Amino acid sequence: MNVETRLVDASVRSWNLALERLTKKFDSLSSEELEREVAPGKNRLIYLFGHLLAVDDSMFATLRLGDRLYPELDALFLKAADRTVTLPPASELKHKWAEVHERLNAALAKLTPAEWVDRHASVSEEDFAKEPHRNRIALLQSRTWHLGYHMGQIVLVK
Amino acid sequence: MNVETRLVDASVRSWNLALERLTKKFDSLSSEELEREVAPGKNRLIYLFGHLLAVDDSMFATLRLGDRLYPELDALFLKAADRTVTLPPASELKHKWAEVHERLNAALAKLTPAEWVDRHASVSEEDFAKEPHRNRIALLQSRTWHLGYHMGQIVLVK
Repeated sequence: MNVETRLVDASVRSWNLALERLTKKFDSLSSEELEREVAPGKNRLIYLFGHLLAVDDSMFATLRLGDRLYPELDALFLKAADRTVTLPPASELKHKWAEVHERLNAALAKLTPAEWVDRHASVSEEDFAKEPHRNRIALLQSRTWHLGYHMGQIVLVK
Repeated sequence: MNVETRLVDASVRSWNLALERLTKKFDSLSSEELEREVAPGKNRLIYLFGHLLAVDDSMFATLRLGDRLYPELDALFLKAADRTVTLPPASELKHKWAEVHERLNAALAKLTPAEWVDRHASVSEEDFAKEPHRNRIALLQSRTWHLGYHMGQIVLVK
């Protein structure tokens, strides 16, 4: 591995480490346990996992890796606040969680270092020429941080 | 900027973005507000900021950048649980927060891509030869995740 490859490897490993922690937690919780809220009046666990799933599923498009799998999740977990709409059963979300992340990681594994520092889809080619830090690896790191942010909340529930 | 430099830049930017969010939050809170706990019976905000400060201060040593500034923080914020020892005033912690991160960032800015993928201090040279992913950039990403993890808790407090 050369320096470039090691640098990419570090970010992909950090992402996978975060993802493994969340996946292990999600899989360990029953439907009843997922109804608990992280603090009084705050989001329920089931909503947070659905929210992370929706955001991660959107990475296919944002990283220009093809079509995302479940765009309908956004209405439930991004546009709607918790407790305002009926959510799918936990078993369905766990299945989609595994599927989305497996396909996403397969796509990520194919990117070269040069492709990682190429633009993500939320920035135009014109703007990217002026702001080359708006690249795929930055997006992956942002999503890794997002997993950590909600993991910190999820662990508050006994 | 070549690919290596852009990859390093992404990680350093992610770290700084996380740090700016935490710093802005810490600076905005009064001594009284910092006494609030993130959820009933959980850590107080003042403890979490001290904990992050202690961990970040330890990065000087872990990243092999020289001596850390305040090793005495570990007894208060790593070895002791919240509410078991008397903590320093918030003003003192805010001052140390700014100082530690300013010096740390100055040191980080000097590392080359090759130095970033060199080993961190928690792994021996012998082990690093077998596990080259235990490098400085991985440590920085882990600490960035750590900031996100506790930021997710801190924002639960109104």
